[in-house]
Amino acid sequence: MSQSIRIAIAGYGNLGRGVEAAIAKNSDMLLTGIYTRRPPSQLKPRQEASPVYSMEALNGDVDKIDVLILCGGSKEDLPKQGPELAALFNTVDSFDTHARIPEYFAAVDGPARANRKTALISAGWDPGMFSINRVYGEALLPDGATYTFWGKGLSQGHSDAIRRIPGVAGGVQYTVPAQEALDRVRDGSRPILTTRQKHTRDCFVVLEADANPEAVKRAIVTMPHYFDEYDTTVAFITEEELRREHNAMPHGGVVIRSGNTTAENAQVVEYSLKLSSNPEFTSSILVAYARAVHRMQQAGQYGAKTVFDVAPGLLSAKSPEQLRAEDL
Amino acid sequence: MSQSIRIAIAGYGNLGRGVEAAIAKNSDMLLTGIYTRRPPSQLKPRQEASPVYSMEALNGDVDKIDVLILCGGSKEDLPKQGPELAALFNTVDSFDTHARIPEYFAAVDGPARANRKTALISAGWDPGMFSINRVYGEALLPDGATYTFWGKGLSQGHSDAIRRIPGVAGGVQYTVPAQEALDRVRDGSRPILTTRQKHTRDCFVVLEADANPEAVKRAIVTMPHYFDEYDTTVAFITEEELRREHNAMPHGGVVIRSGNTTAENAQVVEYSLKLSSNPEFTSSILVAYARAVHRMQQAGQYGAKTVFDVAPGLLSAKSPEQLRAEDL
Repeated sequence: MSQSIRIAIAGYGNLGRGVEAAIAKNSDMLLTGIYTRRPPSQLKPRQEASPVYSMEALNGDVDKIDVLILCGGSKEDLPKQGPELAALFNTVDSFDTHARIPEYFAAVDGPARANRKTALISAGWDPGMFSINRVYGEALLPDGATYTFWGKGLSQGHSDAIRRIPGVAGGVQYTVPAQEALDRVRDGSRPILTTRQKHTRDCFVVLEADANPEAVKRAIVTMPHYFDEYDTTVAFITEEELRREHNAMPHGGVVIRSGNTTAENAQVVEYSLKLSSNPEFTSSILVAYARAVHRMQQAGQYGAKTVFDVAPGLLSAKSPEQLRAEDL
Repeated sequence: MSQSIRIAIAGYGNLGRGVEAAIAKNSDMLLTGIYTRRPPSQLKPRQEASPVYSMEALNGDVDKIDVLILCGGSKEDLPKQGPELAALFNTVDSFDTHARIPEYFAAVDGPARANRKTALISAGWDPGMFSINRVYGEALLPDGATYTFWGKGLSQGHSDAIRRIPGVAGGVQYTVPAQEALDRVRDGSRPILTTRQKHTRDCFVVLEADANPEAVKRAIVTMPHYFDEYDTTVAFITEEELRREHNAMPHGGVVIRSGNTTAENAQVVEYSLKLSSNPEFTSSILVAYARAVHRMQQAGQYGAKTVFDVAPGLLSAKSPEQLRAEDL
């Protein structure tokens, strides 16, 4: 066994906690530190032994860290942290604002390349594993159509949108793929589906004491971008029910490529996820990509990378010989 | 658009025919020739315009071919052809004798490396896409179990075994995954399953005029390695029924990784294929990997490779920029 890969965590929310758990599942890795903007003494890590430091200490620990996993958010944290930290560390992040990926890639690529570091951006399951399956699907069946369904799962963005409505004390939103649409896609018939046909949105809402249920419901189902293009259900529940029944973060989804190799022969490829914890699965992906980033940097492959640039074997703790003998 | 990738086919059975069809679906590729051991004038290609040459002409056409796709069998053809042709061409093959892959890899690696060629071995769906999904699954969920189910599909090897039994005039065998086993695996419970619990084998057999049905049935269900460990059904049909109902080559299967990121959270990842034509899908995969092989050789990555060594983006006709903008 060669030396452990030394991994550090920047930011300790749900994702950081998940990364801490995932590192413990990989025997070739060592957690060297959790770096936080909070006072370190106030942070209670999952494992008591996990060392916690102030984010300001990060720059001084450059020599102690092989890969830094950035666990901040895509909106506020990563656009600033990503380029800065890629100048000092090999990094992995889960930047997930799809439309801004080209811009973010360029911002990270420059400093990483200039400093001979490797920075893997936008890892996770979408962007991430779903993206990989879209690319494999297109390449293997060029005459075809790709379908992505999300859920059943808790959508953080839509839940936040509900909670911003006046009169709402709390709430969650589940995205649910429509079974009929899924069945038609799996048939190999390549249907054209509207947004409304693909998913429904189920909301569970706790009202404030003086709120008007009808007004809240109307505000939800007509909300542009978030709900107006979907069939949306709204159920009112108690604070206690919300805590008891809706405290988990399940998610998942399906990527399907349906295509024809000849006029006679339809072929259907499907990749699906059923996740009890969305953030923990994302974290586990970030940790596997940290192994790949470490190897790519050692092989002189510097700059920003995405999951499209990473050969599957680089994610595995096994050697290429072992993989060929055991997994091929 | 840059210059087309010039692809040639060595061997024209089901796989070669499928490769011919797949090249026509990829606008960045050009079929330069089909090379056969039969007299070229006797071969009737799928498309009249496809040029057909004698296998002996191959060595003289080295400068006209970017990638040669080897469409011979794993038992007789590839062990000899693979190492010989990898000294002259960039190659892709579907060598699928799992136990002999390390040996075959070494035999191809030497000549390819010595001649600065790239040789991708064992592409297809198993080995191939299923193998990739086994590796991703293990890497993303190290605390877990991997399950591979095949079918429902026609098994060539098992059909051949039936046809070798005295008294059998013809027949096919379908491998069928057991629904109950599939359901238990999808639950995330990580059951331990015996061979018998995972698949059943359904045989459709045409008897010779004087054959004893009971003796044939017994010979099938007790055949070591092929049938004795499975629940096998045998149905006797007419020659005409065999031709009418069993002339397609459907196949498919499922790779499932079931694992826990923490004690509380089980996560299930599934990759599944539903194929109308097994050989055509395999062919389509070989063609996508030919694109990757061409790029890898141009980038100086010589020697034998497997699907584990190929980054997903290399399979795509799109540029890295386009992939990041459209697929991530």
